[in-house]
Amino acid sequence: MGELSILKKIRTRESAKSFVSLALGIGDDCALLQQKKDEQIAVTTDLSIEGRHFLLEWHQPEVVGYRTLARGLSDLAAMGARPLGAFLSLGLPRELTRATGRRTSWLDRFLDGFLSLADAHKTPLAGGDLAEARFVVADIVLVGGVPKGRALLRSGAKAGDAIYVTGSLGGSAAGLDRLQRFASGKNLSPKKLSDPLIARHFSPFPRLAQGQWLQRHGAASAAIDLSDGLSTDLAHLCEESQLAAEIDPTQLPIAPGATLLQALHGGEDYELLFTASASIRMPRSIAGVGITKIGRMVRHKASRPMMLLNDGASEQPLVSHGWQHFA
Amino acid sequence: MGELSILKKIRTRESAKSFVSLALGIGDDCALLQQKKDEQIAVTTDLSIEGRHFLLEWHQPEVVGYRTLARGLSDLAAMGARPLGAFLSLGLPRELTRATGRRTSWLDRFLDGFLSLADAHKTPLAGGDLAEARFVVADIVLVGGVPKGRALLRSGAKAGDAIYVTGSLGGSAAGLDRLQRFASGKNLSPKKLSDPLIARHFSPFPRLAQGQWLQRHGAASAAIDLSDGLSTDLAHLCEESQLAAEIDPTQLPIAPGATLLQALHGGEDYELLFTASASIRMPRSIAGVGITKIGRMVRHKASRPMMLLNDGASEQPLVSHGWQHFA
Repeated sequence: MGELSILKKIRTRESAKSFVSLALGIGDDCALLQQKKDEQIAVTTDLSIEGRHFLLEWHQPEVVGYRTLARGLSDLAAMGARPLGAFLSLGLPRELTRATGRRTSWLDRFLDGFLSLADAHKTPLAGGDLAEARFVVADIVLVGGVPKGRALLRSGAKAGDAIYVTGSLGGSAAGLDRLQRFASGKNLSPKKLSDPLIARHFSPFPRLAQGQWLQRHGAASAAIDLSDGLSTDLAHLCEESQLAAEIDPTQLPIAPGATLLQALHGGEDYELLFTASASIRMPRSIAGVGITKIGRMVRHKASRPMMLLNDGASEQPLVSHGWQHFA
Repeated sequence: MGELSILKKIRTRESAKSFVSLALGIGDDCALLQQKKDEQIAVTTDLSIEGRHFLLEWHQPEVVGYRTLARGLSDLAAMGARPLGAFLSLGLPRELTRATGRRTSWLDRFLDGFLSLADAHKTPLAGGDLAEARFVVADIVLVGGVPKGRALLRSGAKAGDAIYVTGSLGGSAAGLDRLQRFASGKNLSPKKLSDPLIARHFSPFPRLAQGQWLQRHGAASAAIDLSDGLSTDLAHLCEESQLAAEIDPTQLPIAPGATLLQALHGGEDYELLFTASASIRMPRSIAGVGITKIGRMVRHKASRPMMLLNDGASEQPLVSHGWQHFA
């Protein structure tokens, strides 16, 4: 099955659906997207590489497809944008495009996972590219629309703003840890894979509804999604806002089964971290997802941009432990 | 030098320039682009993989960077769109991010080539992603603006329309052929690399001005860019327009030094192929680039979608010989 017939198959699968944002889908030199009046265009790209972001032995193809798209959607969520279209560039070994015995191909199963999440967020797969490669690389591009001047930026936090997170933290890291332990026993049975923490790692749910709610209500002064872990992503928000932060570890919404360290440093929860003026009465939940206040933004204290506080009694610096390529 | 400091360097380099289309550049969860009123959004992605689309031994880093962006810009040109922003996802081995001796790193030189073309087309590098990989993969995303309902599509050709190409054909394939012969002599001296045909292969010039001219003047009924070669890309245009084509090989603007076969089947010229009503008087050149009529669109004759004609005297089918992944 050549590139063209794979593309034709994907095109057929997508053209059966209808999307208001999609003026022209797969099959031309470009896709054409239609935004609303006065919307700016939000664009994000995320590169996932086999062996770095996922392992074929640990991550089922549906999981790789789902998580690839989740990474991109989560970036749109952090801007308060709504998705207009997704674009997928996929490099993969030839054998992964072929069905084996009764099983459909790795690529088909990847697309099953990808499109299940795309459909849940009414996001068309509007285009992309396919090429043969020695290992799997997937670049996901999301294009969204956000009312002009209303996007949630990392740079908007003010001193005194409260810091919030959606949902719970550390679940994905705890799930990955469990997956690692199961995998070392060489027995990744379906039952083990349905473990709630592993499911958390496999199927994070991008907080699009929450980001859009915050944007529509002008309720957040700054936002970022938690892809690299709280200690790393909060540092980005601090840097862009030129402020420091104080976090109360006793207030963190730690996912059941996760540890404090996983909640502080674990990546891939894809929750939103945002700041809001202390004068705003934040709801306890937005679109069914809990909102928790975990600290506040403060002016810089020398070289300690992030601190962990405990009732003001003890304090220690919070150091970023996120993954960094080439470091 | 870690991922963050590489990104900071790129960000600094780009933020010194100013672009009307760029509302928010590198450094947040998404970039924000500002289109004009009544513009739709055109999006294209192209994946380039070491060993498939280029070879580190043959292609200097500047050339890889330049060609990566050229592929994307050429897709915008084929829609008659204007670039709003480019996004680059790059996976590469760690050593390519490091300077060696007096030479700047492969990555720096890649960016030199990339940004020289971006600047020539006033296109901001608005975002992207970086990751460590065992070989080089570069996914280029271009986002453009095109007046609503005015994009040049592959599907708009009518029977009787004339077929045109910009510039000349086969030059890139002839240059690649020459490069191959030089490389087998293991002597890719700078002098040999300045050979005009090799330069043609290294530095194709995306026909943005020509595509936008055709779009503004409503002069083309359909268009596609010549990335895979005339015989392959014309077949796409025929298929999308549900028509056949007759090409007069004596009229082809063969690049000096190239053969007829290279002009018919060679890829990577990045010229535009377009159709226009026979009633339109097409100029001989658009923005300094020659325009040549090479045939016409006709109704389907059985299973022969493309024919080569010579004064009607002899005729033979034109068969696609372009590259197809996984085939």
